[in-house]
Amino acid sequence: MTGSVIIAGLGPGNDALITPEVSAALTQATDIVGYIPYVARIAPREGLTLHASDNRVELDRSRHALDMAADGHKVVVVSSGDPGVFAMAAAVFEAVEAGPSLYRSLDIRVLPGITAMLAAAARAGAPLGHDFCAINLSDNLKPWALIEKRLRLAAEADFAMAFYNPRSKSRPEGFVRTLEILKDACGDNRPVIFARNVSHVDEQIKVVPLMETTPDMADMRTMVIVGSSRTRIIEMDGAPIVYTPRSAPA
Amino acid sequence: MTGSVIIAGLGPGNDALITPEVSAALTQATDIVGYIPYVARIAPREGLTLHASDNRVELDRSRHALDMAADGHKVVVVSSGDPGVFAMAAAVFEAVEAGPSLYRSLDIRVLPGITAMLAAAARAGAPLGHDFCAINLSDNLKPWALIEKRLRLAAEADFAMAFYNPRSKSRPEGFVRTLEILKDACGDNRPVIFARNVSHVDEQIKVVPLMETTPDMADMRTMVIVGSSRTRIIEMDGAPIVYTPRSAPA
Repeated sequence: MTGSVIIAGLGPGNDALITPEVSAALTQATDIVGYIPYVARIAPREGLTLHASDNRVELDRSRHALDMAADGHKVVVVSSGDPGVFAMAAAVFEAVEAGPSLYRSLDIRVLPGITAMLAAAARAGAPLGHDFCAINLSDNLKPWALIEKRLRLAAEADFAMAFYNPRSKSRPEGFVRTLEILKDACGDNRPVIFARNVSHVDEQIKVVPLMETTPDMADMRTMVIVGSSRTRIIEMDGAPIVYTPRSAPA
Repeated sequence: MTGSVIIAGLGPGNDALITPEVSAALTQATDIVGYIPYVARIAPREGLTLHASDNRVELDRSRHALDMAADGHKVVVVSSGDPGVFAMAAAVFEAVEAGPSLYRSLDIRVLPGITAMLAAAARAGAPLGHDFCAINLSDNLKPWALIEKRLRLAAEADFAMAFYNPRSKSRPEGFVRTLEILKDACGDNRPVIFARNVSHVDEQIKVVPLMETTPDMADMRTMVIVGSSRTRIIEMDGAPIVYTPRSAPA
């Protein structure tokens, strides 16, 4: 029996956003590895072992998956969203690079998923319809100075910006600083989208002008999207729509 | 009967990457609107009218969809990839904003899809595993100077970069210039991924150091992803894997 590691994206939470490719991989798995709430989304069945682990042990989890594959298991590492965007795929490859040469002969594949930024954008309209960037605001794995530099350059480039992990209880000051930088660099009226628990039953979408944003509008379950200078709001009869036109003037 | 417009992403080409949410919307549609090759992906059935149109008529197509919805049709506008990323969602909202107030009372929804950048990244490893940006290299709808400015700022921010529409027959010089700018700004050894026809049977993934890239490596069916300064290549027993670690040094 030949083992494999598939790193699969479960999308933002609603099962209707899981691709058939990922569903098929889950059906064929012998072992599911991942962060507790993501593994909890997988239905138990005969012949399938669920290995749930806590946050911040991504490298241990990756080695466990690789070791089981080396033993012939068909392992699926589950990520929320897309596994390649601030998620498990990079962690598995870090473990491969630092690990025994055996890991380099394994069958390792990444299956894309609907990442939170695109699910949130879709619910708000089309704020990422022109050039944009994605920044992880957590400074657990990078210096805050680098985040700040990227925010300023992204504003100068007039990208729309999507922020992952905007604010946690253990580092509330980063998002305070982020909003200060943006208010300084982007002016007052830039539309900002706070999309919490996208695709879940308690989903909340708020659209707020930059000058009225406050740090408590975001937590770790919130995607924050900031428009470019071209981003517009359409007042619909229902909720407002935020979109960035495809064109930019000369 | 109440009409609606759903703007749905079909993913990069393989039906196994279409979400169940999009499949369900297609099942309930009375009319499908879109660019010829995307409409060709929809199976004809009783009660469904297919409206295929050529490239570069996105606003006409959008108005057609909105008018049919106003007449009570259940219209699905199909996009490849994700409709919110350089695709039809922004075009529909441009038509709404410029159109009659009637359009603002319509039920309009965007259903996300697997965008080419994430499908390509998954096939290559995890090159977008850290902060990144997405730039449309076509200057049909924006001045070339803005593209050039964004390329230089993105390099300064040390983003990984994903390029949509890198090179067409009618404007081959833009990608020549893009590679010149990147070679100047990023040094020689940055990994570059050329992912052509991702998820199709004739998919091709090439990984090339920046110094060895040539403009003819890309066409309109190619996603180009350029690593950040931290992006690494792992020589596997099979094809190389390209990934960007989650961490950045202080």
